[in-house]
Amino acid sequence: MNPLLADIAPSLIRAINARKRPGDVDLGLGEPTLRPDVAPFEAAMEIVRGEGLPYTPNAGLAELREAIARYCAFPGLGAAASVCVTIGSEEALYLALKTVIDPARDEVLVIEPCYLAYPKLCALEGIRHRAVAFDPADGFRPRAGLVLDALGPHTRMIIINTPCNPTGRVWPRAELQALADGLAGRPEPVYVLSDEVYRELYYGEGRPASVAELHPHALIAGSLSKSNALTGLRLGWLIGDAKVIGEATKVHQLVNTAASTLSNHVALEIFRRPESMAAHRPLYRRQRALLLELLARHGIEHAPVEGAFYCFVRLPPTLAADSLAAAERLLDEHRVVTVPGIAFGGAGEGWLRLSWVASPDALTAGIERIADFFNR
Amino acid sequence: MNPLLADIAPSLIRAINARKRPGDVDLGLGEPTLRPDVAPFEAAMEIVRGEGLPYTPNAGLAELREAIARYCAFPGLGAAASVCVTIGSEEALYLALKTVIDPARDEVLVIEPCYLAYPKLCALEGIRHRAVAFDPADGFRPRAGLVLDALGPHTRMIIINTPCNPTGRVWPRAELQALADGLAGRPEPVYVLSDEVYRELYYGEGRPASVAELHPHALIAGSLSKSNALTGLRLGWLIGDAKVIGEATKVHQLVNTAASTLSNHVALEIFRRPESMAAHRPLYRRQRALLLELLARHGIEHAPVEGAFYCFVRLPPTLAADSLAAAERLLDEHRVVTVPGIAFGGAGEGWLRLSWVASPDALTAGIERIADFFNR
Repeated sequence: MNPLLADIAPSLIRAINARKRPGDVDLGLGEPTLRPDVAPFEAAMEIVRGEGLPYTPNAGLAELREAIARYCAFPGLGAAASVCVTIGSEEALYLALKTVIDPARDEVLVIEPCYLAYPKLCALEGIRHRAVAFDPADGFRPRAGLVLDALGPHTRMIIINTPCNPTGRVWPRAELQALADGLAGRPEPVYVLSDEVYRELYYGEGRPASVAELHPHALIAGSLSKSNALTGLRLGWLIGDAKVIGEATKVHQLVNTAASTLSNHVALEIFRRPESMAAHRPLYRRQRALLLELLARHGIEHAPVEGAFYCFVRLPPTLAADSLAAAERLLDEHRVVTVPGIAFGGAGEGWLRLSWVASPDALTAGIERIADFFNR
Repeated sequence: MNPLLADIAPSLIRAINARKRPGDVDLGLGEPTLRPDVAPFEAAMEIVRGEGLPYTPNAGLAELREAIARYCAFPGLGAAASVCVTIGSEEALYLALKTVIDPARDEVLVIEPCYLAYPKLCALEGIRHRAVAFDPADGFRPRAGLVLDALGPHTRMIIINTPCNPTGRVWPRAELQALADGLAGRPEPVYVLSDEVYRELYYGEGRPASVAELHPHALIAGSLSKSNALTGLRLGWLIGDAKVIGEATKVHQLVNTAASTLSNHVALEIFRRPESMAAHRPLYRRQRALLLELLARHGIEHAPVEGAFYCFVRLPPTLAADSLAAAERLLDEHRVVTVPGIAFGGAGEGWLRLSWVASPDALTAGIERIADFFNR
């Protein structure tokens, strides 16, 4: 057996979900509860009726790759050759690591608290990785300086996530610029892999900046999963320099051949109506307003909710030493599912992740129960 | 960059296809030209309209995993826990290698001529692999003795393919039994990874045997791509011991999260009508009869066509030294696309692979042109 697999721990999120009972308030979800628009599916079905369902090219339908490149509009990355269509953004992360990292010499920096697939993917590939912790004292605000201070002689990639799961923070443009500036002087390229799966779900003025606008060695992972409530479509993309994407497509071809042809067509229909990429944002803005009002009413401390559909909540001092125990008690005694901060790395200890995609009634009930638990 | 990628050569099949002009007779295809039944899609769309498109569990819908296990009916592997739903059989091959092989010590045997993803996947994962050649003198008949003779002290896996791409040969039950018997005395398990993506396309009496019926360390890769003309569905499976499948699902989760939810539902609808798995077989039988008649009429020598939709044709002595040059001349001068045998490893040199899924008229024209070329 592959010894690298034995070291990959099962997901804490799944362990929590396994304790869930019917009727519990679920603030643990990692996917939208909104229903997707079915019109793009109806249009794609017309194509299946007419043409059947042959393979797409390995990197996806050329027209879809062009549409994704045009929509994202990253400077110098506007052509189909800069895009590989993937099995969601998850595969895009895998391809980026597998393509540009030499496990014999390179090292990857991950930033905690983070989506735990980043260190697990490194472990799966036998890639050395180190964690950089953002600071709970300022709500885990992204700071380029903390990352640049951690660079080592073999650092080849930094994985960032903006908007961030679990913190909800967004990298400010100035911090991304500082990161790019700090990497510009390195003797060998340092790739910044930016997980932008929550790219459409932002709540400030205007779209957040992407490192692809500022750094020549950027790789961007994205998908339709969160913006369009289409997690089950398994349609994402990796965007980067055409030479890197060509190599990544070799990996993609060997591991998966191609993404679903039907999913390619559905995605193409969505990009023909690019306004639909933002269709759910007003709903999320309203729900976020309710969340913030509830948290303020109950005096619950949290990181600023700048994007995604999570809120990272600080546990009171009596509970902060063990977020897993807190999440388990919250579930067993108060019947609310949350995710313990420790599930996102050591830097998340003392916090809980709430997902606020539940119905307004469920969200209200969930926050009230959390307040009861915190204030007992 | 990952140095393992640089050594993976681009596909010869793609190089040939890049020379194809409109109007050429295409006997190079690796996918059915039949249209799939759309009824399972209509049924799956009803579910999307009602429930949206959330993630499935990582290993696929439980009901689909059960249906696949029940349909395949391998002894001891009849429960959902023995099945991981994958992105076609391609990902199943990857998962099997990634899960059970320790690249630091294990070796894999591949059998040539073979689908070249096998050695390329080994190369991608840094896994040592050796080729065993079947014998052109008996039309590449599968022979367990040749494989057993090649076993080394570190052999951990043998990859077989039945029915075989490109030879069209099927492993006889007696040879599979001899293989299993020969492996039974080994001090450590030797896995047999059996690529059964052409499982439904056989032309003898009754379904060919599977090594899963005979060997305790069998891993079976399958999909709906070829049986149901659904290559673009990207829906396959890996079947094996539940413990191995549990580990493989960890890899699958990290690399892809899950297969398309819509593809899961389409597949479930297909397994609810299991007779549809064999619906295309009569058409292939008729087409094969035409092929054999044409080959006999023109005196073209070939391996017995026992399964799949390929025919491996022996080049005449004047052309046999360079199958790539022969395929290029056949395309440039006679306008027929085929795949040179060398594309399937050194053991395939001197042969051409024809795909006989084209229309009867195209197949007839193609074989006539090949005969002209061979007999000049």
